[in-house]
Amino acid sequence: MGKETEVPSGTLINDAVHQTGIVIDLPCGGKGTCGKCIVRIAEGNVASKPTSLLTEAEAASGLVLACQCSITGNVTVSIPQEPAGAAAGDLLDDGIDLPCETGQETAELYPLSRQVCIQVQKPLKEDGLSDIDRVTRGLRSVLQGTDAICSLPVMRKAADALREDDGWVTVTFSEEEGKTRIINIVGGRSLHGNLGIAVDLGTTTISVRMMDLETGKLLAAKTGYNGQIHCGLDVISRINYAATAERLEDLRSRALHSVNRLVRRVVEDTNTRKEDITACRISGNTIMSHLLLGLKPEYIRLEPYVPTLLQIPCFQASELGIDILPEAIITFSPCVGSYVGGDITAGILVTDLAKGKEAICVFIDIGTNGEIVVGNKEFLMTCACSAGPAFEGGGIDCGMRATTGAIDHATVDRQTCQTGYTVIGGGKPLGLCGSGLIDLVAELLVTGWIDPSGKFNRERSSPLISVTGRRASYTVVEGKDSGSGRPITISETDIENLMRAKAAIYSAASLMLDQAGITFEDILTFSVAGGFGRYLDIDHAVILGLLPDIPVEKFRYVGNASLQGSALCLVSEEFRKRQTALSKRMTYIDLGAFPGYMDQYMAALFLPHTDLNRFPHVIKKLNMHTPRTPS
Amino acid sequence: MGKETEVPSGTLINDAVHQTGIVIDLPCGGKGTCGKCIVRIAEGNVASKPTSLLTEAEAASGLVLACQCSITGNVTVSIPQEPAGAAAGDLLDDGIDLPCETGQETAELYPLSRQVCIQVQKPLKEDGLSDIDRVTRGLRSVLQGTDAICSLPVMRKAADALREDDGWVTVTFSEEEGKTRIINIVGGRSLHGNLGIAVDLGTTTISVRMMDLETGKLLAAKTGYNGQIHCGLDVISRINYAATAERLEDLRSRALHSVNRLVRRVVEDTNTRKEDITACRISGNTIMSHLLLGLKPEYIRLEPYVPTLLQIPCFQASELGIDILPEAIITFSPCVGSYVGGDITAGILVTDLAKGKEAICVFIDIGTNGEIVVGNKEFLMTCACSAGPAFEGGGIDCGMRATTGAIDHATVDRQTCQTGYTVIGGGKPLGLCGSGLIDLVAELLVTGWIDPSGKFNRERSSPLISVTGRRASYTVVEGKDSGSGRPITISETDIENLMRAKAAIYSAASLMLDQAGITFEDILTFSVAGGFGRYLDIDHAVILGLLPDIPVEKFRYVGNASLQGSALCLVSEEFRKRQTALSKRMTYIDLGAFPGYMDQYMAALFLPHTDLNRFPHVIKKLNMHTPRTPS
Repeated sequence: MGKETEVPSGTLINDAVHQTGIVIDLPCGGKGTCGKCIVRIAEGNVASKPTSLLTEAEAASGLVLACQCSITGNVTVSIPQEPAGAAAGDLLDDGIDLPCETGQETAELYPLSRQVCIQVQKPLKEDGLSDIDRVTRGLRSVLQGTDAICSLPVMRKAADALREDDGWVTVTFSEEEGKTRIINIVGGRSLHGNLGIAVDLGTTTISVRMMDLETGKLLAAKTGYNGQIHCGLDVISRINYAATAERLEDLRSRALHSVNRLVRRVVEDTNTRKEDITACRISGNTIMSHLLLGLKPEYIRLEPYVPTLLQIPCFQASELGIDILPEAIITFSPCVGSYVGGDITAGILVTDLAKGKEAICVFIDIGTNGEIVVGNKEFLMTCACSAGPAFEGGGIDCGMRATTGAIDHATVDRQTCQTGYTVIGGGKPLGLCGSGLIDLVAELLVTGWIDPSGKFNRERSSPLISVTGRRASYTVVEGKDSGSGRPITISETDIENLMRAKAAIYSAASLMLDQAGITFEDILTFSVAGGFGRYLDIDHAVILGLLPDIPVEKFRYVGNASLQGSALCLVSEEFRKRQTALSKRMTYIDLGAFPGYMDQYMAALFLPHTDLNRFPHVIKKLNMHTPRTPS
Repeated sequence: MGKETEVPSGTLINDAVHQTGIVIDLPCGGKGTCGKCIVRIAEGNVASKPTSLLTEAEAASGLVLACQCSITGNVTVSIPQEPAGAAAGDLLDDGIDLPCETGQETAELYPLSRQVCIQVQKPLKEDGLSDIDRVTRGLRSVLQGTDAICSLPVMRKAADALREDDGWVTVTFSEEEGKTRIINIVGGRSLHGNLGIAVDLGTTTISVRMMDLETGKLLAAKTGYNGQIHCGLDVISRINYAATAERLEDLRSRALHSVNRLVRRVVEDTNTRKEDITACRISGNTIMSHLLLGLKPEYIRLEPYVPTLLQIPCFQASELGIDILPEAIITFSPCVGSYVGGDITAGILVTDLAKGKEAICVFIDIGTNGEIVVGNKEFLMTCACSAGPAFEGGGIDCGMRATTGAIDHATVDRQTCQTGYTVIGGGKPLGLCGSGLIDLVAELLVTGWIDPSGKFNRERSSPLISVTGRRASYTVVEGKDSGSGRPITISETDIENLMRAKAAIYSAASLMLDQAGITFEDILTFSVAGGFGRYLDIDHAVILGLLPDIPVEKFRYVGNASLQGSALCLVSEEFRKRQTALSKRMTYIDLGAFPGYMDQYMAALFLPHTDLNRFPHVIKKLNMHTPRTPS
């Protein structure tokens, strides 16, 4: 690519390449375990760590892992031109989001930052009151609260503002952490824009909503990739990547820029001013929250898994670098444990768990990590499991996010094995998103084209199924019908990946219920969140054994619950209090500490499950008679 | 000087010149009233405001005031090469300061920031406590106080620190404004450097002291000019200069750099680390405090004279740009009114006023402004007057600060009119500092060489006195004996300046006592602060009528009281509380509102005073028999 750079001896190749502006993705975070960062040393001296991911012949030909190989002299590196995958710069179709209600429930509007017009006392000679004293008094008389504090930039505006319109000022303030803090002072007596931003800070994608804090109305929404995706696909890879201070800063800055880019877009779309954004609520898992704050995530991965923060204090936008009003208040949804974070405490706000019912409810957020909350008004338990990126289109050959061009629904013909499908945004399909994949595999199972172990039935044949060696592959869409001109296929390996993901989640949920001494039958409602697209076919998810075999009316698909919960917290004090109370009540269960988890997981590596008694209705559908137990 | 620059049309010449790095002093702050910024337009087009400070001929020859003349096209400006005056870069001799006691009184050591070693609870799996939770708990158990808060940079250090030495950490924290705030966390169980800086933020000079906060000991002291001196000599000129946002920022940055330079010097001198400076106490007048904070000072000068802040909240060093530990706590001594600031509330801490006595005490701080506090345990009154820079060597032909080379004491021979003198630092004299000037004029009066109106006695002659036109001038030191080779002289104009300065102060003090219904005889102690040098001859100050004619044992010369008071506040909570309480009790009197002030001032424009009954002991010394009243 013709780029040159100079680095100290000992620099890793991928860090050196990074410096030239070229991106080498490190899906495993630079741990040397995924083998995706292979480059060729055309010339020069390097020191490589041994790796089993390259054959002797490959190594002899100059191939190395860019993340495991350091530079010891002048080197020429040749980087393979891969078809571009998801680039952090891509914006995602907002069609993936649920309709923009602020929540299932109406709550009294009491936003994170509020605006009042007050007329402060006239300045008087020798009354011993400064401008700031007069503002504080004015605000106290309106709020009957404690004395307000304000930061230096606000103080700098105060003198002029107080003299602009006979003492009338519009004051924007927050009341978090028991403190009234003045965010802005503007001269004059007219309320002006008071906007807030809700952020779902996901490992793969980041979504923002802009809300009008004075009306509670949603103004715009935008979703894009988390710029950290080049530095590891899941949270553990990100922690691996963050091994040095420079790389931690790199991750911080990538997440920050991703958030700022989305904020800029909603500002442009709504023709508003970023200086009118006075509050922000961010919900992210514990690791994403740490990375946005520049906090070292390493100890979250190491026993005893203690993070720097769980309850995250509020900040000013300028402290974090979020490009809105510099004095805007930034609050985070509280985290509960190392792997159950603010996205979950925000997500449960849109479920029955937040309503303090007698009956037991379940919430599952299905993404790269799966998080589960079980409880009622007496108890709340939570745990997390690693599902991998299959439901988000990752690790699947033709997988993609639920965005324009993704097949989000599919059927399979029992006779011909041909696929019927719908595509997000219409047009020609580009790949399969999570809900499409679930539909397709469930339909293949129901129609008998695959068996409960996820293998294609070798006794049936279709031109759409080809077998190479021991692996079969299925053409979902032929090249001529696809948007890219290449066929869209799924292989048995893809199906295995999906099975591992669903097994991780089902077994985690199942173990949680065991711990609580209840069964799936005891559950009142079962809320499912995740970026599957607008619709997840619950029936199909049950057929695969991802979700339990309970009456379909008990399920609620709530979409991006973290984002919705964040928006609720942005505009409602009631929901902020509820969230704090819920987070304090939640007991965090470390699945890794339960030896039983691995057995449950192994038992779930079957479609729908090795224990068919757990899935009576599915069995009826599949016309299966005898539970089969694999060796 | 060969410099070039490009500016928008309409830019003032002095702003354009400033941009090239050349300094044109604006003693009046750019108001066009002092005539010190004259430059010649050699070529090009400018637009000048009319000024009476230049004759028609001068104007015709191309002379303009750089602060009143804007550029309308390409211009060549010629700047007169003046002998360099005080440059902001000069460091001042620390000999000017009083010996380095921390104060007259011993107070319990309870510094602004404290250090404790604690062992925090071990991290445990699933106990729901984050690292910061564990630190907060650890600190709470030591302090039995409220929960500590900490800023993001401190949080970023916490994880590693807590794992370095089995949970042992050294925590530096402050407890201001009812909040415990963690300033630093370092792994390990040994206390390390905990240093503080006391700052007297003066209009002309800035002094700092470095204190060991763990022992209360003074480690080093340093004084230098306030870099703002090029932008106006007194506070009103600085306010004038600060007319635009850019110039306000210029003033802020100049003060900041002056402070940082002195801090750097004490760090170098003591071989310490700036990162170990965890607290700072700044005492400055209201305008200097506003300028360091970047707060618009304009409304302090305009009726009803209301500043943005009086009680200044605490900040982190990084918010202000002070180059010490970025999370260090910065506190300010509280201001009482527009012209009675933190230097005074700090200064009175080293006087009897701070001891809550029955008897009435007076404190006067003599500088460019004179501030006076009168009171006892029942009441406290304060006011300020503008003395001009005479006592600091300004506006006096051969005046200089009390630094190396300044004549600080002088006698005059009754017969020959020859001067005897001592020089700060020994060596040849360079000029006269405030105490030297007071000595000299008092001696000239006592020996009859000048009369009570400040004029040289034309009936006596001495080769040292020369009369040009209507003005006489007196050679204090001949050129051959002076350090610069030029003679050191004082003129009748210099004596008039001194008389105006002393009249402003005496009349203000006198009016204050009138207001309180007392006389100078009622006073128990009379404390005098100011940068006169190490010794002010009180007798001489009384002879001139600067100080009242009361028994000399009632006077206390306390030197830079603001700096000493700041140092006391830095190490003692008792003094911080005392200062807050005193500042709240002080009633601010606006002299400008008293028509009687001008009469008192006029009456004091005499040596010692027109009303000689006020100075019975002085009269005896002077052998004056009849009070003379000027027309």
